[in-house]
Amino acid sequence: MTNYKFNKKRKNKAIVLLSGGLDSAVSLYSALSESYQVSCLSFDYGQRHKKELKAAQKIAKKAGCQWQLVKISLPWKGSSLLDKTKKIPRHRKIDAEIPSTYVPARNIIFLSFAASFAESVNASAIFIGANEIDYSGYPDCRQEFLDAFSLALQKGTKAGTQGVKTIICAPLVKKNKQQIVELAIRLGVPLELTWSCYSGGKKPCGTCDSCILRAQGFAQAKMKDPAGC
Amino acid sequence: MTNYKFNKKRKNKAIVLLSGGLDSAVSLYSALSESYQVSCLSFDYGQRHKKELKAAQKIAKKAGCQWQLVKISLPWKGSSLLDKTKKIPRHRKIDAEIPSTYVPARNIIFLSFAASFAESVNASAIFIGANEIDYSGYPDCRQEFLDAFSLALQKGTKAGTQGVKTIICAPLVKKNKQQIVELAIRLGVPLELTWSCYSGGKKPCGTCDSCILRAQGFAQAKMKDPAGC
Repeated sequence: MTNYKFNKKRKNKAIVLLSGGLDSAVSLYSALSESYQVSCLSFDYGQRHKKELKAAQKIAKKAGCQWQLVKISLPWKGSSLLDKTKKIPRHRKIDAEIPSTYVPARNIIFLSFAASFAESVNASAIFIGANEIDYSGYPDCRQEFLDAFSLALQKGTKAGTQGVKTIICAPLVKKNKQQIVELAIRLGVPLELTWSCYSGGKKPCGTCDSCILRAQGFAQAKMKDPAGC
Repeated sequence: MTNYKFNKKRKNKAIVLLSGGLDSAVSLYSALSESYQVSCLSFDYGQRHKKELKAAQKIAKKAGCQWQLVKISLPWKGSSLLDKTKKIPRHRKIDAEIPSTYVPARNIIFLSFAASFAESVNASAIFIGANEIDYSGYPDCRQEFLDAFSLALQKGTKAGTQGVKTIICAPLVKKNKQQIVELAIRLGVPLELTWSCYSGGKKPCGTCDSCILRAQGFAQAKMKDPAGC
């Protein structure tokens, strides 16, 4: 599973959205376990935690997959994930409210690029680590959004209108963080390479939503986090 | 309609996807005629006809609107609209076949950015010059795609899940090119500033799909094209 030559021999292609965090890494290994030939796609979108991109690159390399970085600009700032003058929420009670780290239409944009990439290389699936159980309330992480987007792809791409359905796979969407950590262990995900923290510091802050959810998952799975989060 | 101060006083905001061609310019003026405060959005996506961006900027300025340029890269080339080693089809019979100028998921990507922009500035509408009558067969120009994408926005954005619907307006989608030219005249669109040709030369080539469709519209409307196409 970790050899590119092997990966290249696989018939069915998939594009995996790889942020470099826990969920996207598990999503990648899920795609590999389903025998897809995987190309990973990451985005430099001005996020303060650019460190995740190095993590993504290392994870893709370790898994023996191609890695494609796309740089995009979102000049209409406003999210605390993009704007360093804003504060990342700390020790937030994870509830239904959408936090300031929300980047408008982020997954919509990412999936659009993935759809373009998929159609260009005849990939039949797009994997995304979206999760709507232990998550920050971002609406574009929910299955009902993914279903609607999938329909838009069917109607709006050459492949879709010719009857070739590009499946959007979200293997973690209904799993809680404990189950995600347990799946990561089962699939051999190199957890030590993943980076989840929003803050962009040298070490994970331990207090942002992403660190809190990650720690919760490892605690519930009774595992030590090998990335030292 | 062509004064920015006036434009700024308008209450309802709209994002207009402005390529710089005939259809998007008419779409812009449709938005203005519906009393929207408009911000125009254009993309440098590696198209060989970059000249359209200068046209877009001039049209936005003339209309008194803000203009935002977003640069994106689509590293998975393949379309003849992006790849100069490929030939743009000439004198093509415009039929149901999707030509080599098709860029996978292009409007999906553009609309995703527009959705992000719209949500950031609380715009209630996105205008796109998509047209499914006299067009090149691109699937992401059809109303059924736009409807599906609209649903994805409702499900996948903070605004959408909070009941604020971002309308996708395609005022030209069911018009033929003659009707579009006639509407352009009625709305006072500065047609002399528009640029439709795919080829990227100094003058319109007159033989690509876009030039053929444009010429057809002016001929049917019994009008001379002021851009000299």
